Amino acid sequence: MGYTPNDWEIYERALRHKSLFSKKGENNERLEFLGDSILDSIVAEYLFDTYPKRSEGFLTKMRSKIVSRKTLNELATRMELRELVQAAPEIKGDRTSLYGNALEALVGAIYRDQGYERTKEYVLKHILEKHLDLESLQTIESDYKSRLLEWGQKERIEVSFSIEELPQTTKGEYRFKAALTVGELHTASAIGTSKKRAEQQAAQIIWQEMFNK
Amino acid sequence: MGYTPNDWEIYERALRHKSLFSKKGENNERLEFLGDSILDSIVAEYLFDTYPKRSEGFLTKMRSKIVSRKTLNELATRMELRELVQAAPEIKGDRTSLYGNALEALVGAIYRDQGYERTKEYVLKHILEKHLDLESLQTIESDYKSRLLEWGQKERIEVSFSIEELPQTTKGEYRFKAALTVGELHTASAIGTSKKRAEQQAAQIIWQEMFNK
Repeated sequence: MGYTPNDWEIYERALRHKSLFSKKGENNERLEFLGDSILDSIVAEYLFDTYPKRSEGFLTKMRSKIVSRKTLNELATRMELRELVQAAPEIKGDRTSLYGNALEALVGAIYRDQGYERTKEYVLKHILEKHLDLESLQTIESDYKSRLLEWGQKERIEVSFSIEELPQTTKGEYRFKAALTVGELHTASAIGTSKKRAEQQAAQIIWQEMFNK
Repeated sequence: MGYTPNDWEIYERALRHKSLFSKKGENNERLEFLGDSILDSIVAEYLFDTYPKRSEGFLTKMRSKIVSRKTLNELATRMELRELVQAAPEIKGDRTSLYGNALEALVGAIYRDQGYERTKEYVLKHILEKHLDLESLQTIESDYKSRLLEWGQKERIEVSFSIEELPQTTKGEYRFKAALTVGELHTASAIGTSKKRAEQQAAQIIWQEMFNK
């Protein structure tokens, strides 16, 4: 890692999943909580400096793409954390969010061991600048409708949308109501000024409900 | 503030609302983006140290109560930020989230001017330890159902819940589905292992949809 840790134990703890270490003080859950926000801060400033002219809305979108489970899991894989994480064999295979979470816990461990400035240096140099492709992240749209449809196809669970045109507002704006059903468990609806917006909004609600993010 | 700023301009910018300063570089929106996550980190570590035995779930709940719009607006008011924020007179009165946002921007300004450690000291001493009542925050339940019902009564908009018992899971767990309608615009449903949980979950989805937080 380019430095000698003061506290080896905290790094070990960062890589211990609760499936093998059920005691709170021994697994990485609390460090993940801390590291999650430290990573958010470092990413926020990185974007703040990289895009000095962009709006807060753009920065917020970019940050949520970077700290999404998907991106963090990919980063963790590139950093070869998979071999280092200690978890029960039956979940090591399919629960990849394990590795993104361990990455956050590791950031928490570095922070507690080395302080904010050194953690920032480490994250910038060894994670963000080394493994992250900002250009391609910029072009990814947060398309929840497509994500849900793909997921449904893969899991063989029905995902259906229906759309209804509502009366125009008193200001003459169009309004559409999208209703969405996923399997038998999740339904949501949302209003938008276009069909696409209403559908995306409903899809986002369900996506976040289902995957808790 | 207990120290002499290196960069006065950044503190001024932190207090400038976009209603009077429409150019991105002149208002506080980007600093709010940065300060938001710095504050999250400081609060996370504060809770991490204050509650060494508590779970990540508890810490997450406490943090979201502390950095909620409501708590931040109250903190900003106690810190007398209202007099300092520059915003259009017509919105200074009712849009109180203005002040919570300015508080975040101010944290961003302190961070850029003084670095992480000094910002942490400042936030702990002058904000969290001075103005925050952790004990009473612990007892506040994030009761979205009550909030929605109160809001509906105030705004004279119908809020109705219905509950349906679903077949037990193969593991024998009870499941309930709560459906919730607010006026004509918002509907959501959610599944939970108790009626209360299902209702709270559905209420939270709608609350976040309506108030975007």
